[in-house]
Amino acid sequence: MEKLKLVSLKNIKIKDSFWDRYLRLVPEVEIPYQWDILNDNLEGVETSHCISNFKIAAGREEGEFYGAVFQDSDVAKWLEALSYVLMSKRDPEWEACADEVIDLIGEAQWADGYINTYYTIKEKGKRFTNLKEGHELYTAGHLMEAATAYYRATGKDKFLRIMIKFADLICTLFSDENNSRAYPGHQEIEIGLIKMYEATGNEKYLKQAKAFLERRGRIPDYFEEEKKNPAYRMIFPELEDYDRKYAQTHLPVRQQKTAEGHAVRAVYMYSAMADIAAFYKDADLLNVCRTLWENIVGKRMYITGSIGSSGLLERFTTDYDLPNNCNYSESCASVGLALFSRRMAQITGEARYMDIAELALYNTVLAGISMDGRSFFYVNPLEVWPENCLPRTSKEHVKPVRQKWFGVACCPPNIARTLASLGEYAVFQNGADVYWNLYLGTEVTLDLDGHRTVIRMETEFPAEGEVKLTVLSDKDYHGNLFLRIPHYVKRFDVSSCGRKTEYEGIKGYAKIPLDGERQELHISMDIEPRVIRSSPRVRENIGKAAVMRGPLVYCLEEQDNGKNLPGIYLDPGSLRECYREDILGGVTEIRASGLRAVETGWPEEDLYSEEKICWKRTELTFIPYAYWCNRTPGEMLVWVKELQKFQEGQNGKDQSMGVHN
Amino acid sequence: MEKLKLVSLKNIKIKDSFWDRYLRLVPEVEIPYQWDILNDNLEGVETSHCISNFKIAAGREEGEFYGAVFQDSDVAKWLEALSYVLMSKRDPEWEACADEVIDLIGEAQWADGYINTYYTIKEKGKRFTNLKEGHELYTAGHLMEAATAYYRATGKDKFLRIMIKFADLICTLFSDENNSRAYPGHQEIEIGLIKMYEATGNEKYLKQAKAFLERRGRIPDYFEEEKKNPAYRMIFPELEDYDRKYAQTHLPVRQQKTAEGHAVRAVYMYSAMADIAAFYKDADLLNVCRTLWENIVGKRMYITGSIGSSGLLERFTTDYDLPNNCNYSESCASVGLALFSRRMAQITGEARYMDIAELALYNTVLAGISMDGRSFFYVNPLEVWPENCLPRTSKEHVKPVRQKWFGVACCPPNIARTLASLGEYAVFQNGADVYWNLYLGTEVTLDLDGHRTVIRMETEFPAEGEVKLTVLSDKDYHGNLFLRIPHYVKRFDVSSCGRKTEYEGIKGYAKIPLDGERQELHISMDIEPRVIRSSPRVRENIGKAAVMRGPLVYCLEEQDNGKNLPGIYLDPGSLRECYREDILGGVTEIRASGLRAVETGWPEEDLYSEEKICWKRTELTFIPYAYWCNRTPGEMLVWVKELQKFQEGQNGKDQSMGVHN
Repeated sequence: MEKLKLVSLKNIKIKDSFWDRYLRLVPEVEIPYQWDILNDNLEGVETSHCISNFKIAAGREEGEFYGAVFQDSDVAKWLEALSYVLMSKRDPEWEACADEVIDLIGEAQWADGYINTYYTIKEKGKRFTNLKEGHELYTAGHLMEAATAYYRATGKDKFLRIMIKFADLICTLFSDENNSRAYPGHQEIEIGLIKMYEATGNEKYLKQAKAFLERRGRIPDYFEEEKKNPAYRMIFPELEDYDRKYAQTHLPVRQQKTAEGHAVRAVYMYSAMADIAAFYKDADLLNVCRTLWENIVGKRMYITGSIGSSGLLERFTTDYDLPNNCNYSESCASVGLALFSRRMAQITGEARYMDIAELALYNTVLAGISMDGRSFFYVNPLEVWPENCLPRTSKEHVKPVRQKWFGVACCPPNIARTLASLGEYAVFQNGADVYWNLYLGTEVTLDLDGHRTVIRMETEFPAEGEVKLTVLSDKDYHGNLFLRIPHYVKRFDVSSCGRKTEYEGIKGYAKIPLDGERQELHISMDIEPRVIRSSPRVRENIGKAAVMRGPLVYCLEEQDNGKNLPGIYLDPGSLRECYREDILGGVTEIRASGLRAVETGWPEEDLYSEEKICWKRTELTFIPYAYWCNRTPGEMLVWVKELQKFQEGQNGKDQSMGVHN
Repeated sequence: MEKLKLVSLKNIKIKDSFWDRYLRLVPEVEIPYQWDILNDNLEGVETSHCISNFKIAAGREEGEFYGAVFQDSDVAKWLEALSYVLMSKRDPEWEACADEVIDLIGEAQWADGYINTYYTIKEKGKRFTNLKEGHELYTAGHLMEAATAYYRATGKDKFLRIMIKFADLICTLFSDENNSRAYPGHQEIEIGLIKMYEATGNEKYLKQAKAFLERRGRIPDYFEEEKKNPAYRMIFPELEDYDRKYAQTHLPVRQQKTAEGHAVRAVYMYSAMADIAAFYKDADLLNVCRTLWENIVGKRMYITGSIGSSGLLERFTTDYDLPNNCNYSESCASVGLALFSRRMAQITGEARYMDIAELALYNTVLAGISMDGRSFFYVNPLEVWPENCLPRTSKEHVKPVRQKWFGVACCPPNIARTLASLGEYAVFQNGADVYWNLYLGTEVTLDLDGHRTVIRMETEFPAEGEVKLTVLSDKDYHGNLFLRIPHYVKRFDVSSCGRKTEYEGIKGYAKIPLDGERQELHISMDIEPRVIRSSPRVRENIGKAAVMRGPLVYCLEEQDNGKNLPGIYLDPGSLRECYREDILGGVTEIRASGLRAVETGWPEEDLYSEEKICWKRTELTFIPYAYWCNRTPGEMLVWVKELQKFQEGQNGKDQSMGVHN
């Protein structure tokens, strides 16, 4: 079990026609915008109070704690995103700002290493008395991720040292000797501890992460035990009727076979499980991860790479339950699915995992943020009827427009850190070999077994399927380039100097030998629009089709297609693409024709009737789902009804069933 | 504004092939079963504690209050249902039992007339300090309905006198002089007070009902004012984020144009408004009722006569928002819609209102109770996938099987009292004229302007459309029989002695002159199965059809049609009916053919693919929605996808749009 390595973001420069509009948002908009929010400098936005909480905890200010128990994690994710930005380009001003925040975190740290402003300000005597709901380990995990990223970005170790102290405290308090049954309610500390191990080489962090995982789902339940502590206090009354699946404690992790409960918790946990499986070369645990990933991807994932079908409790439900207009599909859950999938790809060398990471990144993660970077979706439905998304109804969680910020503000900084670390998804390295996952304009500088190598990719992907790749190394370099063959292309041609290169396909990658100083490759993929159907086990989507092109899922918007999008039938044979420079910063639209229900042809006073609906021909315009709600807000629809010839039998032979009147 | 009169249930004997199986449940099952529950004599059922609460309040027993603030209303609805049963047939044993309960209620009454066991036992100092949530006036209204019914049934006036005392207290405490702004959170007292007026002739009750209605929606909001009372205490924390629409206080009632908020509250209020409009000959208020009724029936009602689209807060949402698998559609709301519609029919003489009362009664009200009378639906979805109705998800309110009882047990006794009073829907009287609404086996004895008249109806409706009507009066009798022409029949022939009778159609009724001693009429209606579509404004139902026959909505059940019902396409030209004696106590099934998605033709590992679904021909069996889940529980579906020829243009001319591949 050889884990493919990430390439430092310092060595990856992205300059890409598709991604630049989003990536530049992170330094230009997200970092300053979210900094203003963390400091409560923006009006008309949900109060954050994050920095104030730290100032109060540090004793610099008087005041009350404000926010959720996990409020500190917003600061952590902001620092982590900033660190990734600094890896690409140092910035003394923001670094100074980060250093100040780090000083503040240091001052808010207790003598024994503990950090958490909620418990410091509000519930001093109660720290670690409610692991189920307290989120202290969750927040600690995010701080560890931030500290290790900042260390990698700047070489400065103050933040890392602060977090070593906290990690050491955690390893002591929750060692097998001192508290052998404790584990966190919301997973994240495991990822944080693993990164602490990677940054410091101290294996106790890895062991502690593993222990937290292995303790879940044991009987008796620690979450019941901790209630007996007189200091225990319930934090979330809405979780009184707690289901052990909610935090994946219904079974020991090695016995779990289906993705259950709160989707973000689940994929964060699976990510840590994959890492632990790799570090300990634990094939059984890796198989568990594979089973869980396959359950998600084969039965519980939206075509947009989002997860969490229930509008209540942000949770998984049952196989093939994928309602489109009242799902949760949290942005953070897609971030987590990308993190989990990337780890599985690193460990197994299988490209299919990166297919899903790509799907989540190009669709739900991007849909989660507006093109101006100032508003966000927490919930990502595949069908929206804005007039119907009312508060105090079953759809109150569905917002028809992006929000400026949230009371629980996990998603915006999570999207920022993901965009800022996009390079970590693009390329892996393994000795002299390079694994290329994402097709985007990039220049990557690598040390391939001692050979300094620069690989430059130029492409208009996903607008076009042509990719130029230049490898500059030295004469003595010999290695392999593994190019991911996206599962959706029917043609994946590689050529060099105008001659087609034969390649071996290995686990979904095209293996191309690399030799010598300079090599130029040309990759050509077909990325024509395609019509996708769901398994007939997905009750919501029978008779419907979705349109994709390359990694992008497309959707209909009211702005282009009028109201009542569910009244449209798509002619699946009519797709054609059309590049539009004038909208959405340039976009490949997909045009099609179809039929639509004529509302005016039906008497307004009749709700039900023996009459038939009248139809008219209609022209349709699809845009990428990632871009929806960046113009005039309105209806949106991914799964469109399909005009179809019914095909009988299992051998797929076409047979017109006729149409009935 | 002449209000058509109800006929006393004492004078209506029902003996009907369709209804008897349900009507006999009330005396044989509901009354004893619910009596056992009210007394906590049944195991494995939600605790009621109703009678114990009264015993404790009366000082007969020691103990704690148990249940909701409105727990007393279950006793009231049981007494009301029993009263209707006693109107049909006196029963000394049950009457003795009722008398004991009435004694108990009397003992639990305060010296000044107040009755409410919750406030008596638990919150003595707080009565009437939280009208928004306290439900004391709601409970009082149900007790008044029960008391007047018991008085009509038995002539005994003890219960009525008890409630006169309470009503007098309410009229004093909430008079315009003493508390001119107060009104109840959950409407029902208005209906109760109107019935007290009808029973006693004391107009102050009518005035008080009107005052409660007129005070709603005024600014400043009384529900905000009462919070300033130091004794105020919140009862339902989940309503903290209260929306004024929830209890229809968003506007003065005369300005309301759309049905909003909690559906049961809404239709109870509209029922009282209609009564008040009639008593005060208030055409403006009647117009408001008409507008609200039309908003419901034209835009916010399910084809099954149910209302309340949101799974949260049991509420109306927006026009044409009618999701089928996560709606509320509470049984009680359909009871209320029938009550409202019947009043509108009485006031306007328009048959269309009875079309909707009939729809609600024959479909949702019946679906709410099992054929053995021992289990109930609170929520009435039109599409159920049992495996997916999980607790702690968006569908946690949807139960795939009927429940024995509920924590909030409004529906079972509400269904019981509705069944027991079915006769009140069947016939109205107006001087020498008779209005006949429901087609069922009946014998009605009437005093028509001094002429004792017996009308006997014999029919197998809705199994068949043939009805025989015999009128026996005296020689001098002259009057009219108004026969409701159901909106769904295309043919409504009346004949006498083998000769077709010409009739005038007036407001949806066929006007037939009646003269002399004996007259026999034969009515013949077509009740072939029909295919119904929704307005294309109902996004959920575009491309789907429902099957109806007479007043009955039909559905597919898993037992007859296998799993994955949403994968079925109905051939709308293939319907044929088939009487089955051997199931469900005899039922007219509707058979049809169609196509269904073949799950096995699709690779299990693919959730999404460019492949097409395979289809196979399938035979379909529909049963009445009222009867669903009376055999093996499983999937159920009302709106089925329809194989269709697309019809272009508004003039309805058929044009095959071809099928596309």
